[in-house]
Amino acid sequence: MTADNDKPELSDEELNARHAEKMRKKKAARDKIMATKTIEKGLLIVHTGKGKGKSTAGFGMVFRSLGHGHKVGVVQFVKGRIETGERMALERFSDLVTVKRMGEGFTWETQDRQRDIDAARQAWDAAKEMITSGDYRLVLCDELNIVLRYDYLDIAEVVEFLENEKPEDVHVVITGRNAKDELIEIADLVTDMTQIKHPFRSGVKPQEGIEF
Amino acid sequence: MTADNDKPELSDEELNARHAEKMRKKKAARDKIMATKTIEKGLLIVHTGKGKGKSTAGFGMVFRSLGHGHKVGVVQFVKGRIETGERMALERFSDLVTVKRMGEGFTWETQDRQRDIDAARQAWDAAKEMITSGDYRLVLCDELNIVLRYDYLDIAEVVEFLENEKPEDVHVVITGRNAKDELIEIADLVTDMTQIKHPFRSGVKPQEGIEF
Repeated sequence: MTADNDKPELSDEELNARHAEKMRKKKAARDKIMATKTIEKGLLIVHTGKGKGKSTAGFGMVFRSLGHGHKVGVVQFVKGRIETGERMALERFSDLVTVKRMGEGFTWETQDRQRDIDAARQAWDAAKEMITSGDYRLVLCDELNIVLRYDYLDIAEVVEFLENEKPEDVHVVITGRNAKDELIEIADLVTDMTQIKHPFRSGVKPQEGIEF
Repeated sequence: MTADNDKPELSDEELNARHAEKMRKKKAARDKIMATKTIEKGLLIVHTGKGKGKSTAGFGMVFRSLGHGHKVGVVQFVKGRIETGERMALERFSDLVTVKRMGEGFTWETQDRQRDIDAARQAWDAAKEMITSGDYRLVLCDELNIVLRYDYLDIAEVVEFLENEKPEDVHVVITGRNAKDELIEIADLVTDMTQIKHPFRSGVKPQEGIEF
């Protein structure tokens, strides 16, 4: 090694000792912070943004919860979004999970506004029933943001329900791009999946296990 | 309804007709674009950013792929990150999935730089073996970005392997915050999970099914 810069060269032993000291401090600081986190509650979680991973992370939470033996409900607001992979994987948890595929497809597939509105209403009624039933620890409202964005459901009504009627111990996960500000405002956890690179841009087609 | 603004009021029928026409155009444009996506290939996928959902979406992809009956490999670079929920859920797919928990815990837990470096090397060797074995359609390298960030593994070596030795038909998913630029450069799909709101800020503790 050269000594071109002003930093003294450290031996591996010195590096390791410094590292251990730094990490001891980091752990102490972290432990102190985590000791202040004492609240347990059902969370309102929103996955939004243009990038991939919103529904995928929603289903990741579903599987994590199923792993713990929790009962989980899934409502699909836009058919075509819970695809074969998820559906077939969930079949191994048929003792724990209830899936309702209510949507009629992307709005540019149906091309029928009234049918989309009716489907959104039915899906929301199913979601409300699941959330208030006492049967489920977690309910995934997949692509609810899409129908809210098109005003097929009234955001004020959805917010009012989540604020006042969602039981305290139920986690609700809502996915879809363009989450409304009113929803972000009342949520406990919001992640924006920001697209940095997407394979479609390089001409790659939707693939089994990736897009569906 | 009032007519305070200059927009003419539309009947539901007119609204629906406009919507149908707009959506027909949208579908035509979309179909045209998607027809140009013809390439099939194993993707290099990176989930990074400070927000929640990186590993969760990685596991979502694992379950989606398992649902299709694909064989999947998982290597955990930092123990404590594949937690009980995922592990228990994966047990229902023991015919299809191989999980290697190689890491020794967060670096501030071990406080032992040399042990972390050795663990990172072993985990990377296991990942390379899985990726080149021909046995797996998808390999998840959970929290690989963390050990790259601390230079416990050489990014140049990892990039060289992924560019030249990853088989064309294997998907590799890499998670963890602070993804290196060199990795983003060669990736096909990159999502930055951007934190908008996190429940720890309101004093909520890590909860079963949410954090683990």
